[in-house]
Amino acid sequence: MRIVTWGFGAMGRGIAKNIIESKFMKLVGVIDKNPEFIGKDVGELLGLGNYGVRVRDSIDVIEETNPDLVVIATSSFVKDVLPQIEYAVKNHANVITIAEEMAFPFDSHPEESLYMDSLAKRYGVTILGTGVNPGFVLDTLIIALTGVCTRVDRIVAKRINDLSPFGKTVMETQGVGTTPEQFEEGLKKGTIVGHIGFPQSIAMIARALGWNITKIEEERKPIISNVYRETPVVKVEPGMVAGCNHSAKAYVGDKCVIELYHPQQIHPHLEGVETGDYIEIYGDININLSIKPEIPGGKATIAIATNMIPIVIGAQPGLKCMADLPVPRSILSFTR
Amino acid sequence: MRIVTWGFGAMGRGIAKNIIESKFMKLVGVIDKNPEFIGKDVGELLGLGNYGVRVRDSIDVIEETNPDLVVIATSSFVKDVLPQIEYAVKNHANVITIAEEMAFPFDSHPEESLYMDSLAKRYGVTILGTGVNPGFVLDTLIIALTGVCTRVDRIVAKRINDLSPFGKTVMETQGVGTTPEQFEEGLKKGTIVGHIGFPQSIAMIARALGWNITKIEEERKPIISNVYRETPVVKVEPGMVAGCNHSAKAYVGDKCVIELYHPQQIHPHLEGVETGDYIEIYGDININLSIKPEIPGGKATIAIATNMIPIVIGAQPGLKCMADLPVPRSILSFTR
Repeated sequence: MRIVTWGFGAMGRGIAKNIIESKFMKLVGVIDKNPEFIGKDVGELLGLGNYGVRVRDSIDVIEETNPDLVVIATSSFVKDVLPQIEYAVKNHANVITIAEEMAFPFDSHPEESLYMDSLAKRYGVTILGTGVNPGFVLDTLIIALTGVCTRVDRIVAKRINDLSPFGKTVMETQGVGTTPEQFEEGLKKGTIVGHIGFPQSIAMIARALGWNITKIEEERKPIISNVYRETPVVKVEPGMVAGCNHSAKAYVGDKCVIELYHPQQIHPHLEGVETGDYIEIYGDININLSIKPEIPGGKATIAIATNMIPIVIGAQPGLKCMADLPVPRSILSFTR
Repeated sequence: MRIVTWGFGAMGRGIAKNIIESKFMKLVGVIDKNPEFIGKDVGELLGLGNYGVRVRDSIDVIEETNPDLVVIATSSFVKDVLPQIEYAVKNHANVITIAEEMAFPFDSHPEESLYMDSLAKRYGVTILGTGVNPGFVLDTLIIALTGVCTRVDRIVAKRINDLSPFGKTVMETQGVGTTPEQFEEGLKKGTIVGHIGFPQSIAMIARALGWNITKIEEERKPIISNVYRETPVVKVEPGMVAGCNHSAKAYVGDKCVIELYHPQQIHPHLEGVETGDYIEIYGDININLSIKPEIPGGKATIAIATNMIPIVIGAQPGLKCMADLPVPRSILSFTR
């Protein structure tokens, strides 16, 4: 399988490394506009030695290398990745993107979704948005667990993670290191956004279960630290904001049927907060699942984007979501 | 969707009830050979009032009712369900069966599997074996979790459940109520079998991950009770057997890569044993999952067999396993 990766940030680099190390995939091209990378050998940049493929700042890479699939890791938003997806599809390439909004764009971007679906079908390829969350923990895994339930009344899930390993951009979009006043201002201005993906996860669950969601309420609250916390990129004094406590509730009429919580902060353990993924399903049976510590976001997103490659290449054409396809599985541990 | 159920035991009854209560399925026939049920109305037998379909002891039901899918809940073994599957497929019906060996028959029954696969393709239908375990907890769920791992080295999973709600047949096949000597004899004679499904779960995981398993070791040990335990169908004095501690280890060469444990006993809490499903995955990341208490076996098998119906009807023709198909999801909670 011939693969091009588009975007050579932390996620794109991890995915490129996985593809190089896989026995049955070949990385045939890498697109990125960072001058630090352009013209350099991908293998050298990843510490794997010369590989023979250089990073280029040109979409022509796709037409020239004729890949089976393009992995797009450039942005969180449909508006940014749509032209990139369009270009890949028109070159007859399947697409996987980790843009959060693409995990389930059908409700949030109905027109764009119809367009991408018809384009993919016309060119005989598949488009998939995936990632650890949205894409797995707060949607696909929940949906799979409802599969052992006859009746589901209500779903409550929490993903409590540690932002400490992340860089400056993530700290800014989560408001880490701001004062409570700056946090409120950032929310209003849209510079602090919290988690991107609640409407997508809720819509994916709702479509799978056939629930007609009538209202979604999102809430973003500052996690004000009582202690000093610091990472290489940010310092948080007591009284300042250590993260964003973002949650979403979805209703069918008056009834709250889905509650998702995703408080993201640096060093949660400094105030005794245990990280983990928690899913509770209430129905004819109750399911009470925990994964402790949480599935690590960065590594898991890199893994799932790589692991879905053969499934996407083998899938029926169209714009798909994780719930439409066979379950992901690790593809890099082959012994035969 | 027109459905026939074949087998009206505890599982078959639950599935029939789900189908009757679904908005978009119709139960068009029920086959069972129990004289207690023959000729009686299915709705009446289920306490739902007259439904207009009577239990019949004739396979002609399938030809006469022309169902989209037949659910077979008659036996645990390929040899028993194979002729039933064959008959359904030759009548152009898709098939779901909860026969444990059918969850992944490709390795344990390669010739039969090839035959079923080619037959299904010739008639344009899909055959699936499913259930809570094998079919979900110790295979599909594990596979899905490996999807967020780049590299998987080793998998350890345990399903600790309570057999107390089950009937006489289950107690006998698990050796509940025997003396330790009778237990050993039962193992030798094959009357005590423990869990049916370890080779299937292991083979399903191995195929998904591309692992070339070279050896599987199974072990069945008596769970000898220190206290008095009893259910409506069995009494266990201290020193007698309360259940079967069944486990399986799978190797790639010298390396043990999969360990599955499934101790099944009555009233485990009487000796402080907490029930639950536990999955540990070791690789580039480690995943530590628990579901407490365990997903209840009977109800979950009824649910997943029902929930897979639309997916199986919509799937590509052939003999499939759970890892080949989109994740299951509850289909009976529709609000639209």
